[in-house]
Amino acid sequence: MNIPRSSFPRIVIIGGGFAGIALAKRLRNKKVQVVLLDKHNYHNFQPLMYQVATGGLEPDSIAYPIRKVVQEHKDFYFRLADVKEIDSINNKIIADIGELKYDYLVIATGSKTNFFGNKEMERNCMAMKTIPQSLNIRSLILENFEQALLTNDIDERHSLMNFVLVGGGPTGVELAGALAEMKKAILPKDYPDLDIRKMEINLIQSGDRILNTMSENASQKAEEFLIKLGVSVWKNVRVTGYDSRVVTTNSDLTFDSATVIWTAGVQGALVNGLNVHSLIARVDRIKVNAYNQVEGYDNIFAIGDIASMSLEEYPQGHPMMAQPAIQQGKHLSENLARLLDKKEMKPFVYKDKGSMATIGRNKAVVDLPHYHFSGVFAWYVWMFVHLFSLIGFKNKAVVFLNWVYNYVRFDREARLIIRPYKKKQIATFTTDEI
Amino acid sequence: MNIPRSSFPRIVIIGGGFAGIALAKRLRNKKVQVVLLDKHNYHNFQPLMYQVATGGLEPDSIAYPIRKVVQEHKDFYFRLADVKEIDSINNKIIADIGELKYDYLVIATGSKTNFFGNKEMERNCMAMKTIPQSLNIRSLILENFEQALLTNDIDERHSLMNFVLVGGGPTGVELAGALAEMKKAILPKDYPDLDIRKMEINLIQSGDRILNTMSENASQKAEEFLIKLGVSVWKNVRVTGYDSRVVTTNSDLTFDSATVIWTAGVQGALVNGLNVHSLIARVDRIKVNAYNQVEGYDNIFAIGDIASMSLEEYPQGHPMMAQPAIQQGKHLSENLARLLDKKEMKPFVYKDKGSMATIGRNKAVVDLPHYHFSGVFAWYVWMFVHLFSLIGFKNKAVVFLNWVYNYVRFDREARLIIRPYKKKQIATFTTDEI
Repeated sequence: MNIPRSSFPRIVIIGGGFAGIALAKRLRNKKVQVVLLDKHNYHNFQPLMYQVATGGLEPDSIAYPIRKVVQEHKDFYFRLADVKEIDSINNKIIADIGELKYDYLVIATGSKTNFFGNKEMERNCMAMKTIPQSLNIRSLILENFEQALLTNDIDERHSLMNFVLVGGGPTGVELAGALAEMKKAILPKDYPDLDIRKMEINLIQSGDRILNTMSENASQKAEEFLIKLGVSVWKNVRVTGYDSRVVTTNSDLTFDSATVIWTAGVQGALVNGLNVHSLIARVDRIKVNAYNQVEGYDNIFAIGDIASMSLEEYPQGHPMMAQPAIQQGKHLSENLARLLDKKEMKPFVYKDKGSMATIGRNKAVVDLPHYHFSGVFAWYVWMFVHLFSLIGFKNKAVVFLNWVYNYVRFDREARLIIRPYKKKQIATFTTDEI
Repeated sequence: MNIPRSSFPRIVIIGGGFAGIALAKRLRNKKVQVVLLDKHNYHNFQPLMYQVATGGLEPDSIAYPIRKVVQEHKDFYFRLADVKEIDSINNKIIADIGELKYDYLVIATGSKTNFFGNKEMERNCMAMKTIPQSLNIRSLILENFEQALLTNDIDERHSLMNFVLVGGGPTGVELAGALAEMKKAILPKDYPDLDIRKMEINLIQSGDRILNTMSENASQKAEEFLIKLGVSVWKNVRVTGYDSRVVTTNSDLTFDSATVIWTAGVQGALVNGLNVHSLIARVDRIKVNAYNQVEGYDNIFAIGDIASMSLEEYPQGHPMMAQPAIQQGKHLSENLARLLDKKEMKPFVYKDKGSMATIGRNKAVVDLPHYHFSGVFAWYVWMFVHLFSLIGFKNKAVVFLNWVYNYVRFDREARLIIRPYKKKQIATFTTDEI
């Protein structure tokens, strides 16, 4: 892979998400050579992806060039690469651009959409884990309305204007809220010759409350907000199939819909080659010890969504979101330094800073460790936290400007179909196709 | 096409570019029904497209939703449609989404890249007339550098870092300047393990001066600026072929290059069905009289790049740029009103407001009707004019913010490969593929 050996040990990091970037940034000026590999040349801020999908933000505002993050690091190499396999016996990884030896390997590949083996759903639903996927959703939403104008068939028009979101986690809830805001403020102006009141937004949750990783209070408030915005919230309903026309469920309930967005589950984005005993089957996460060391390996670590550290408070591993990933990345940088200094590593301790979700204009729910609140103030807190978590001054400024504009003008201007989305019709088209 | 007849005569406009939008905006509240058709749901500001291609701006900043432009118009319909044919005998157009009768038809389809029949060039060169094409160029430039890191073959690396721009008009010149700025300020920081000094930018012009539609002074200054930035300017050289590896010319000169961008010509984006006598063959423009009426038709008009009004000062028709298009669009709105009032139409008179081009940081050339100047002040004028020509407050603000940031930080942050560009290898892939 064309990377010269230096006098320092080489740490190879797979993945430039929250965990990988947090680690890479802190290895700067440490006595190591760092090679960061990612399939994309940018880091993206997943929590705001739903705003790209609904025309509130441009993709460039929430993405940041990885090379820029690490521009001033010495003995640092970034490569755009898709890692295919880990060869732990020979301490090397095998990627589409060649092979590379490592002294220490850190797997930070994150997660991908989990359809739980339902191939039909995988083929026909939209996922929203990558920027191209979000842009596809944006295009499809707008294309649906353009198409709805053209038909005289009431059923077809209904199907085009009926949106089904599967999964009541933060992504599903925030997307439902954003769609509802579009319905209220933008679409009636854009499509005066269409009866936008007929647009439906259905949020389907298999459990008995939405936002089930948050407090009861947050769930209840979020549901109230959504209902006020006109979203139909279906609880205790499990989607069983979608043939690109009709959504079936475990009850009599069905939905005729041209657009089903699946946010109901994630699984680790595994790389081949690790011992099967190191993996947790159903969710494809990697078992790690308290130092994020992969079970069964001395020099392989895993951090972020892909890693599952089983603790009393988190028997299934930490929640798959930004905070544990960032904290594990930071912590591992210290542990690696200790390891190289032949000192003992320190166990990772997760500081729960709380969680939050926004539902729409002036509406959010926030759970802090000892305090839960919702409403306008929560919404400001949500915006403030997200704004300041973005990397880079320019992204912050552009997002801020967009938000102020959208708020004052009740508008979202990024409703452009730059690349039309062609609905998948053939079975060989996978959801990762961009 | 599902559009109800109103009591007013129906004007169908094909194309939402500068001409079509200028016309549509001014038909607001006139006693007409307006139907605007475009292949895209956005209007785009072509003069800044090169900044999208070189990572300085996001596509959303220079594009604007057409529906938003005409949101408050009454008796106005927009349809996303690809018009295939004009059936002038039955006064209707035939599009991919159906047929539509018109009382008056306005063709404002603009222009597309002209490869002058060279199929090999068309297959292997990048064009830059649409936003997806600009994004493809952006992806390809960045992919080239990622790839250059991976090879030990000096020839291959040279080819990947050698950029050939064919055509010394404003687009070629501005693109060359932007690439040179990237070479100077950004690429050395992003690719510390690559010798960026070896990057080459070649601008090839068939005539004996670049910017040959501008003053001699502008041509000379622009060339000086480009040379100072390290661009090689080749005049009196005509490119004859490009097999995706080697560019051949009418002299001994050849270029090994992985990236050839063709900006050497445009032609009208014709719609089928008009009488052949109304057309100018080589450039595919439509002959119009002084009222923009298509020769041989009473109720069909053409405006903008597609229209060629032969006058003493402009025997080939007006220059194919924004100003004549906008002015013709405005003027036609008045003439249509006169026509409907059974008044006599007034001939179009073009007001030349001058032309300008920017070459890079602090460098531009401006030709006003009676005054030519260049340098820092010209650069401010260029920025001011372009900023204020953008539609919409938010686009203006975001572009301004980006420019200030890029200027102060010597940076361009939009260097993301959102959708990788797959190099065309097969003959069936046309340049319009997005």
